[in-house]
Amino acid sequence: MAAPRHHPFDPLTPEEISRAARIVHPHFGGQTPNFRVITLQEPPKQQMIAYLDKEHRKQPIGQVPTRCARVEVVITGPKQNNNLFELFVDLDDNKVFEKKHLEGKHSYIDAEYMQAVEKACLANQRVQEEIRSLDLPSGSTVVVEPWAYATDGMNDMTTRVTMCWFYLRLLESPDANYYAYPLEICAEVSEALEVNKVYRLPTTPHERINNIQKPFDRRRIHSTAASEYHPDLRPSPRTTTKPYQVIQPEGPSFRIHGNYVEWEKWSFRVGFNYREGMSLHDIRYGGRDLFYRLSLAEMFVPYGDPRAPYPRKAAFDLGNDGAGINANNLQLGCDCLGTIKYFDAYHNTSGGEPLKMPNVVCCHEQDDGILWKHANFRTQVPIVTRSRILVLQTIITVSNYEYIFAFHFCQDASIFYEVRATGILSTVPSSLDVKNVPYGTIVAPGVLAPYHQHLFSLRIDPAIDGHSNSLVIEESKPLPVGDPSVHNPFGIGYITESHIVEEEGGFDLDFSKNRNYKFINENNINPITNTPVGFKLLPQYSQMLLSHPNSFHAKRSEFGQHAVWVTRYEDNDHFPSGKYTMQSSGGDGIASAIEKRRATGIAQSVRNQDIVVWHTFGSTHNPRIEDWPVMPNEKFMVGLKPVNFFSGNPGLDVAVSTQDRNKSVLYTEAIENTGGSCCQSRL
Amino acid sequence: MAAPRHHPFDPLTPEEISRAARIVHPHFGGQTPNFRVITLQEPPKQQMIAYLDKEHRKQPIGQVPTRCARVEVVITGPKQNNNLFELFVDLDDNKVFEKKHLEGKHSYIDAEYMQAVEKACLANQRVQEEIRSLDLPSGSTVVVEPWAYATDGMNDMTTRVTMCWFYLRLLESPDANYYAYPLEICAEVSEALEVNKVYRLPTTPHERINNIQKPFDRRRIHSTAASEYHPDLRPSPRTTTKPYQVIQPEGPSFRIHGNYVEWEKWSFRVGFNYREGMSLHDIRYGGRDLFYRLSLAEMFVPYGDPRAPYPRKAAFDLGNDGAGINANNLQLGCDCLGTIKYFDAYHNTSGGEPLKMPNVVCCHEQDDGILWKHANFRTQVPIVTRSRILVLQTIITVSNYEYIFAFHFCQDASIFYEVRATGILSTVPSSLDVKNVPYGTIVAPGVLAPYHQHLFSLRIDPAIDGHSNSLVIEESKPLPVGDPSVHNPFGIGYITESHIVEEEGGFDLDFSKNRNYKFINENNINPITNTPVGFKLLPQYSQMLLSHPNSFHAKRSEFGQHAVWVTRYEDNDHFPSGKYTMQSSGGDGIASAIEKRRATGIAQSVRNQDIVVWHTFGSTHNPRIEDWPVMPNEKFMVGLKPVNFFSGNPGLDVAVSTQDRNKSVLYTEAIENTGGSCCQSRL
Repeated sequence: MAAPRHHPFDPLTPEEISRAARIVHPHFGGQTPNFRVITLQEPPKQQMIAYLDKEHRKQPIGQVPTRCARVEVVITGPKQNNNLFELFVDLDDNKVFEKKHLEGKHSYIDAEYMQAVEKACLANQRVQEEIRSLDLPSGSTVVVEPWAYATDGMNDMTTRVTMCWFYLRLLESPDANYYAYPLEICAEVSEALEVNKVYRLPTTPHERINNIQKPFDRRRIHSTAASEYHPDLRPSPRTTTKPYQVIQPEGPSFRIHGNYVEWEKWSFRVGFNYREGMSLHDIRYGGRDLFYRLSLAEMFVPYGDPRAPYPRKAAFDLGNDGAGINANNLQLGCDCLGTIKYFDAYHNTSGGEPLKMPNVVCCHEQDDGILWKHANFRTQVPIVTRSRILVLQTIITVSNYEYIFAFHFCQDASIFYEVRATGILSTVPSSLDVKNVPYGTIVAPGVLAPYHQHLFSLRIDPAIDGHSNSLVIEESKPLPVGDPSVHNPFGIGYITESHIVEEEGGFDLDFSKNRNYKFINENNINPITNTPVGFKLLPQYSQMLLSHPNSFHAKRSEFGQHAVWVTRYEDNDHFPSGKYTMQSSGGDGIASAIEKRRATGIAQSVRNQDIVVWHTFGSTHNPRIEDWPVMPNEKFMVGLKPVNFFSGNPGLDVAVSTQDRNKSVLYTEAIENTGGSCCQSRL
Repeated sequence: MAAPRHHPFDPLTPEEISRAARIVHPHFGGQTPNFRVITLQEPPKQQMIAYLDKEHRKQPIGQVPTRCARVEVVITGPKQNNNLFELFVDLDDNKVFEKKHLEGKHSYIDAEYMQAVEKACLANQRVQEEIRSLDLPSGSTVVVEPWAYATDGMNDMTTRVTMCWFYLRLLESPDANYYAYPLEICAEVSEALEVNKVYRLPTTPHERINNIQKPFDRRRIHSTAASEYHPDLRPSPRTTTKPYQVIQPEGPSFRIHGNYVEWEKWSFRVGFNYREGMSLHDIRYGGRDLFYRLSLAEMFVPYGDPRAPYPRKAAFDLGNDGAGINANNLQLGCDCLGTIKYFDAYHNTSGGEPLKMPNVVCCHEQDDGILWKHANFRTQVPIVTRSRILVLQTIITVSNYEYIFAFHFCQDASIFYEVRATGILSTVPSSLDVKNVPYGTIVAPGVLAPYHQHLFSLRIDPAIDGHSNSLVIEESKPLPVGDPSVHNPFGIGYITESHIVEEEGGFDLDFSKNRNYKFINENNINPITNTPVGFKLLPQYSQMLLSHPNSFHAKRSEFGQHAVWVTRYEDNDHFPSGKYTMQSSGGDGIASAIEKRRATGIAQSVRNQDIVVWHTFGSTHNPRIEDWPVMPNEKFMVGLKPVNFFSGNPGLDVAVSTQDRNKSVLYTEAIENTGGSCCQSRL
């Protein structure tokens, strides 16, 4: 067979997207398919293992996995109801080989449809009447923010309902921060774009949904300096921050061909899809296999305000919104500093044409302080190496919030996954008479920022020296005192105790026991330490889901119950809250999947098997006023570090740092007094 | 009165050090004082509050606090015993106003004395006989590593004992890593430099201290590539890491006069002393008072190997060694990158003369990724600001280990304290027949790296809008379900519950409850949020001390029992394991101090008082082979963040990022193919 034009992990090309659409089109007769998704269907892992093995040994590949696309199509039915279809296309043979009608399921949020909802809502007579009754300041504009409806058990689940929240844009600029003026009106819009309900929101802890028309309280109007973030609408910024530039005179240390990245001893492939956004594949260090795939698998943002209709605010930012489709077009010198490689992605239009999304991932290096140092106190000779990291970053906007996701590759063979939350708080109106709300923070006059959680699921598909891996839970425990069978005469001894997880399940963190989760390969013993080779998870310690286990939030999210989950690998199992989260009613997340397999006795052993580990982390975000009107980033960090995998420090051969290469500048009072020239190096 | 020549927080000048020594000298008659410490005695806080208040209001200062020195002197007695004296010197009046003989207490480790111990040990006939019996490879050198004796109850505590550990330097180079060849010999040396005991160390979990002479096992000799870190002793380093330089064409954004630093809206003073190393004083943001003092207060490193004599390995790296006296001379382009301001410090010689310690603290800026971002999805207009941070860094070497301590000041008014542990593991010999040891990791043939803990105590002296502060413990809790008095119909509501700590004590972390520790000022209510202004601690979640409560390790360290301590402020109370940790027997740490005050009914209330918060954090360090032969840094991060202190995001006025100022470079295949020129900006 000829070599494939694309690597099996490469996202679909524009040509493949068009072709998949053309192949699918006839399967809907005369109806017009709304193409929601045309994406790579990743090949079965068993085929890929063989492929990658040959690829890395530089042997002839032989059988190449079939190139396949997964396609989601929506057909609007006679009663405006949406029928969702999933099709699988063989792009080598140009044919559909599977077509499913997914009754009762919905595709992810359709931006075009949401715009129609906004329009329909504002065109509604009852809505207009409510707006008039507010007696808004002249020159201001009402903005409708449509949100997917989070199941609360009060509505029929078979068709889509959209919650419309109302805000006021006080200034003329379209970039004015309308979240500073949440209005009391709320509307519910049906699948067929009918406004089913219009009502007033509660504005005190004791109030409930009502129909009492009250005018907009003009005491809520406050200084734009406090509520605007756009520089055109703000006083002049501080001028004290001097420029800071990164120069790489010999270019970057990475080499990139297509989606294949090599940097220091690392190699991996960059993937991208509409849902997960950036994914990383076939991650190796020094040629040794570490991870088959790393990706953010889900994200759930439930709000904690108990008053109806706020329980309907609970976003699946991957399942409902899509981290890929909402990825920013990253800008040189703004989102990224240094020498930057950008990756583009292709999504599809509703008509099935390729849609270019430029610069959705950036790749660059950063200095990360000192990697290692030792000074021999006898000779006074210090040896210092600086740490260089490779950053793969993507940023998404989901309505009000931004999330910055970045994988950091380190020279000591560790990987960190950094999440930064920023953007604007989702706000609701609050009576000026209310001083404190137990489930929110008042961030401006009449503006309540409700408490909420951000729960992320990082999917880790380990391949520690191969695909038969085990999950180990290790704790550090004091040796007993006074037990004659244990030697601990001074009461200071401690040891580690480990147990290997045998069955799929969810587990919790406990720093007080120094509980560690390790992925090991029991078949490969480190010849020096005499222990299995492994990597460990450095978790982000986070509170788990606060919603009651019987609530729809809990039933729908599932992964939010535990910090660490382990499952047996299955192809296409990327969905810890289910594949179709939009108005889901629960029971199809990771806990249910494990329970179902346990009940049938299939695939429950995870010892010395192909396993997947899922780490739930995030924040219970009880807003501070300092998060307003735009939030300084809140950072979360998860790490993956080798534990007795290598034969020593993998960064031992990093060259020592020298002023000759690093060209730092000594600050002296001369600089201070002459006002800024920086040419006074002391070497 | 005339304006003082130095700020009251400034460390002693060389002239003041000399003068203090001259003033002290006559107080010891004809005896020769060994000056261990001549340091600033910080003025009483009550005086400093008045001083700083006037200073910041630019009012006449009036009464300036008396400039005082604290001096530690050791006088060697007739039986070679050491008599420790503490003297306080009034430098305005040139007189000693207090002199104490501290019977049974020892000053911190005396490097000159330790060199004498090494020499005496090697000169000892019994030691030489043991060395001969090892039949070491020719050309190799025996290195004696003297350690302060950690109290284990087996020795008289009134005089010093030094534990001498033996290593082999196999290569000729004095920078060869002798920790790769720990020898089985151990010796104990007395105060009077007599070798009291020589014996063989256990080398299996079942062996004990013995006198069985065995030759050095030559199978332990392994490749230098695996055990050396000095580049002269290693194969050529990797050449893949290209240069990375930081350019600040208009100079740095900070302004420094003496020890006073201004940067963005921050101001503070840099202090330095032999024990704590870097300290920060009078920390303000936008002129508002935040912290009176921030410093590392103690650090304890107990080893977990239960076999005698290893329970004597437990280092107080501040109390015994001194973070100041062991601070590195930082090098431009190696320890620090960018435009760097260095601070020097002055210690004293044993004769009482000033001893310059150059470049012990560096101050520089770093780019820290994105500070905040929002993209209006309606207009597609993104606004991005990059985060600049100011780093104050000091690095210490304590025998085998290095610690990198850095305060990070952020534009959003948060402060982070970063600790990186690096350096070389402390090793002990292990029989080649032993495959696994339950309290250590075999990192090379015959080399055991025992488990140990690093416990740090960060002392936080808050001054949140003044000095009457309270500590609040806040948790996030689900609202009950099914309670008719609580409105939570959908089971998703949650609230925060807070309680103010009334009495001094130690407290634990619980991420599962989102437990937060806040320092608040109950007298100052944020007019928008209607809650007291405050800052919160972002803790480093860490296992506490594993030693048994009755062990000497536990009795001596005390701060290692709990993650958060709060005490009422007292002048000179900087010692959570006691002021004199050297061979201490316990009972003079933070827990005992609280207990004593509680018993006497003095100063136990900490509500709306001048309080100090102490955060214990660190790691249970069960070595990986990847930490060998020099450890890639392990990072710990503690944060301090405003919570409803300001009226909005303090970094809102940071200018948006532009390529014009940041001058990033687009990586294209052209760069790749031409091999490195980086001039292809796309803007």
